[in-house]
Amino acid sequence: MKSAGYKNQGFTQLKLIQPKNEVEVSDIGGKKVTPAEELAAHIGETAIIQGSIYKIRKMSGFAFVLIRTREMVIQCIYNEEAEFSLEELQEECCVRAKGRVVKEERSRTGYDFVLRQVEILSRPAEPAPIVINQKRVDTGLEHLLDYRPLTLRNERERASFKIQEGLCRGFRRFLENEQFTEIHSPKIVAEGAEGGANIFRLNYFGKEAFLAQSPQFYKQMMVGVFERVFEIGPVFRAEKHDTSRHLNEYTSVDFEMGYISGFETIMEMETAMLQAAMEELKKTCGKELALLQVKLPEINGIPAIRFREAKKWIAEAYGREIHDPDDFEPEEEKLLCERIQKETGSEFVFVTHYPGKKRPFYAMDSQENPEETLSFDLLFRGLEITTGGQRIHSYEEQVKKMKSRGMNIGNFESYLMMHKYGMPPHGGLGLGLERLTARLLEKDNVRYASLFPRDINRVTP
Amino acid sequence: MKSAGYKNQGFTQLKLIQPKNEVEVSDIGGKKVTPAEELAAHIGETAIIQGSIYKIRKMSGFAFVLIRTREMVIQCIYNEEAEFSLEELQEECCVRAKGRVVKEERSRTGYDFVLRQVEILSRPAEPAPIVINQKRVDTGLEHLLDYRPLTLRNERERASFKIQEGLCRGFRRFLENEQFTEIHSPKIVAEGAEGGANIFRLNYFGKEAFLAQSPQFYKQMMVGVFERVFEIGPVFRAEKHDTSRHLNEYTSVDFEMGYISGFETIMEMETAMLQAAMEELKKTCGKELALLQVKLPEINGIPAIRFREAKKWIAEAYGREIHDPDDFEPEEEKLLCERIQKETGSEFVFVTHYPGKKRPFYAMDSQENPEETLSFDLLFRGLEITTGGQRIHSYEEQVKKMKSRGMNIGNFESYLMMHKYGMPPHGGLGLGLERLTARLLEKDNVRYASLFPRDINRVTP
Repeated sequence: MKSAGYKNQGFTQLKLIQPKNEVEVSDIGGKKVTPAEELAAHIGETAIIQGSIYKIRKMSGFAFVLIRTREMVIQCIYNEEAEFSLEELQEECCVRAKGRVVKEERSRTGYDFVLRQVEILSRPAEPAPIVINQKRVDTGLEHLLDYRPLTLRNERERASFKIQEGLCRGFRRFLENEQFTEIHSPKIVAEGAEGGANIFRLNYFGKEAFLAQSPQFYKQMMVGVFERVFEIGPVFRAEKHDTSRHLNEYTSVDFEMGYISGFETIMEMETAMLQAAMEELKKTCGKELALLQVKLPEINGIPAIRFREAKKWIAEAYGREIHDPDDFEPEEEKLLCERIQKETGSEFVFVTHYPGKKRPFYAMDSQENPEETLSFDLLFRGLEITTGGQRIHSYEEQVKKMKSRGMNIGNFESYLMMHKYGMPPHGGLGLGLERLTARLLEKDNVRYASLFPRDINRVTP
Repeated sequence: MKSAGYKNQGFTQLKLIQPKNEVEVSDIGGKKVTPAEELAAHIGETAIIQGSIYKIRKMSGFAFVLIRTREMVIQCIYNEEAEFSLEELQEECCVRAKGRVVKEERSRTGYDFVLRQVEILSRPAEPAPIVINQKRVDTGLEHLLDYRPLTLRNERERASFKIQEGLCRGFRRFLENEQFTEIHSPKIVAEGAEGGANIFRLNYFGKEAFLAQSPQFYKQMMVGVFERVFEIGPVFRAEKHDTSRHLNEYTSVDFEMGYISGFETIMEMETAMLQAAMEELKKTCGKELALLQVKLPEINGIPAIRFREAKKWIAEAYGREIHDPDDFEPEEEKLLCERIQKETGSEFVFVTHYPGKKRPFYAMDSQENPEETLSFDLLFRGLEITTGGQRIHSYEEQVKKMKSRGMNIGNFESYLMMHKYGMPPHGGLGLGLERLTARLLEKDNVRYASLFPRDINRVTP
């Protein structure tokens, strides 16, 4: 903290904080830490890095010391150049290290870092009870999640979430480019958007309130304001099913747009958005994609099939009986994706025109067949990752549909305000970020794609 | 929806959705809608726009028809060129309109749009019960909020949220640039981070859970993983005070970083982040800043003063008695800002070294004076907008402080896991997005800066 600039004004108790983003280094005699990504440009030079000791591997006459920095794991060499004893280091110590960057083609990064000095910034109180510095954390899902603050330090575990971040960044940049406005809608609400029993109840100063199952009402209202809006935020479902596909809190990527010519506009926009996100991953997450050997899907258009036809198609192709004519069973989603990929090469498929009885009250019905809605799901590698469609924008039509479902119009006064005072034709979608991430990484449980998953049995860590 | 590409493969029920982001226009004989921002480049040409009829103003022999598009309000002229009757239009109709872009220096945009044809896409069911198309919505705060889906359509109201969006974009770009990883932490939690009574309780499948007061625990855990992390998301405070400064749900901009050399590192980073956000606003929100006549603060470093000294300073300068020696009264925050601005020109001020008894259990105590913490608040135009500081990273030290506060260590097992297995020196901050926005826009109530505010009396709209 510098006290420049104020002394002459007679109040020396004021200091001036200057904008700065570098941490100054002193104990090991350097001024600046070199970010790991820049080390390759310093081969032959001395540099300072900082990070946690990820792994110490003693060899004959020297040792490998892997240091986990914010971007990557750096392979360091402990040998006779070091001015400290190897015994001073232990795994999960936090250090600053000074050394030489030397070319080494056998190293994943193309260089090694030969240690000279270290400054120990902190030490763990206990050794880790679970091995995190092997290629994979070798334990079951429950254990992996119980020790999440620790197991996420594993190189592969954290790479999953860099890829998830890359997806969000890709979505966001695409939507900004398309003039969508980012909004923050409330999560404490007076009415659920999806209806049904899977809603969390809250004591809100003695009254009942709920946790938002989706930003649906608010993003629609905001279409009346900004025409195109999006939000990436938490949604809450009091889902009692303990399955590999469900979380009780997840991150929903929502967009909603006006002046559409039909629900196809939404599917076209999503196709373009997914394409953009895959390009973003290629551009910015190459390291992580390689580490996890992720095979990105090619998106050259996405095939679309009507729900009724898809049901029939699967039943015939695989000789299955149809148990629920109005919804997919998880197995049917898998088979549909399997067959679509075989026939078209696409790992995505839109299923359109879902039956009205399985869709919420704001879904627009088809004019050609009022039992069907102008809605869709997007399936990816066997799993539904998006639900979307066109919404009712006419006040009379919306009120009529709500009444036909026995809903109390009075409870939805502020929602219906937008319809009453004018709304363009509009629609949108919600995409489950964890589901997309899980299928992209070919994880068989969506919990792997959530930093701190919530399910019926888990609210910690 | 095109059916190209699949016919030869014998399953004609498949269609192919192509990535696309333009809505096709047919009824008024055009192919493409021109975004409002591009109209200036089409002076002398015919174009198609879409939006809501914001205002109709009849003049002698012609009429002004203002159309609200997603980017701005376009001044259209209804005259003898129109092939439709003015009576067909009404306010809050949604339309597509074809017309000529003509140079007009008296128009705010530099051009007028002379209407030829319109396609009415929807009509409101009722005229608006509140006037939204004057310069300001002339009503009290409660009414403004009751009719939020409508009142946000006012040009000035919505401009506030474009500025808020610009702030977030500025923060995000800055933090990405500084290699912070964006995270999504859970909002349903087993323990509150801030303690105290202002926490919402939830029935979580028969067990008690809470709504997160901040992402504190999770962002700290994630420092052990990514070193630098941030999150922009909702936080929840069961604040019973109905003041102009408090919301029960607000958007918190949080970052947390490792390997700091002191809590000054956090203040330096915040100073740089705020600078970057102001630059982003200048670059991308010029229109909105001008409309709202926003005076952006100049940030050339931010003065910092110790809490005890600030208290004394204010007491002396303004002849006030000190009622609470450990905290500021709102009036004192205002006076401090007033005086700092007078003396230094800065509209921001850091207050440092807050007394430990007012800071949470994870705050690091000062070594020179154990009653003070290595923490800070940032005040802006009379209001606290940020709380931050250095956190305890040593397991022993953290457990000791918790015990001295009578806390049950067993309840914090997963939080303490990170300390136990090694954490770097670290710290961070949380910034209230609505508070910053409100002060930037010089609104005297933070509710103006929330799309759908939540307070003790309000959960709708």
